[in-house]
Amino acid sequence: LKSDYEFKANAVGVVEEGLSEEGERNKGRYEVLSRIRVFPECTDGLPGIGEYSHLIVVWHMDREREVKLKVKPRGHIDMPQVGIFATRFPPRPNHIATSVVELVNASSSYLTVKGLDAWTGSPVLDIKPYDYWDMVKNAKVPSWFKLFWEERSSQRHYAKNVPWLGP
Amino acid sequence: LKSDYEFKANAVGVVEEGLSEEGERNKGRYEVLSRIRVFPECTDGLPGIGEYSHLIVVWHMDREREVKLKVKPRGHIDMPQVGIFATRFPPRPNHIATSVVELVNASSSYLTVKGLDAWTGSPVLDIKPYDYWDMVKNAKVPSWFKLFWEERSSQRHYAKNVPWLGP
Repeated sequence: LKSDYEFKANAVGVVEEGLSEEGERNKGRYEVLSRIRVFPECTDGLPGIGEYSHLIVVWHMDREREVKLKVKPRGHIDMPQVGIFATRFPPRPNHIATSVVELVNASSSYLTVKGLDAWTGSPVLDIKPYDYWDMVKNAKVPSWFKLFWEERSSQRHYAKNVPWLGP
Repeated sequence: LKSDYEFKANAVGVVEEGLSEEGERNKGRYEVLSRIRVFPECTDGLPGIGEYSHLIVVWHMDREREVKLKVKPRGHIDMPQVGIFATRFPPRPNHIATSVVELVNASSSYLTVKGLDAWTGSPVLDIKPYDYWDMVKNAKVPSWFKLFWEERSSQRHYAKNVPWLGP
């Protein structure tokens, strides 16, 4: 296998209502109810999904145009420069996002979710249930991430106020 | 957006040593050390990744040829028929897998990981750090998943024997 291996996929759905602007991405994630429309070709894949409390949404960050391999996380604290694979930041190769969300409602073709950091119109590539294989006890993260998290937790939208979230 | 929206990506790396046969997929996942080679074009994205204990590997299940929207989970217990999006099974639209793995070692172009359910040769589409945004406390799963999990836990490869795994 070489790096010119090309992967092709079709969207299974779209974020019909999500974050309205890029600036909202980190601000309102856990307050906004997002609505995913699953395309008619794929709605047969939905039955049973309502029995899970959380999902992993795989989506294409299609507004992102850049790829940067070295990034310096933004924030008020001094962040080290790290490789993009050491972050969840958007300008990554392939612009694929995986977002853990709370499932609020599932109908025959729509999913209403909380915690999705996708802009309105984003293509959805897969929808997966969050299950026990996704749960890591005591995951270790860098100290810069912890500082970032604490800073976010002190804001009203994050951590402490989302009962299912965090370590 | 319509379902004919086409997404294209290039592999960022390859599972150079993974599960050797499809049959091993569920058997040896937490026993096998897998090695991911990151392509030279992308190795600049790696620095800093070694500070995390766990990663999310996004990869293409390129051996899977089928797409089934309705599936009946295999196992010794009676499973209900559910939609593919209510499972993590391979024959899903786009054949994208997201696997949470333990990072055992990171070098300048290789990642050695534990818990990857990918066959040798699988294309890797993204590598993400597992962080606090991926941790769900008390996630709810269907009763069929719990039975499946208990059955697996009684085998030597799973749950009870992987200290970081599970609820």
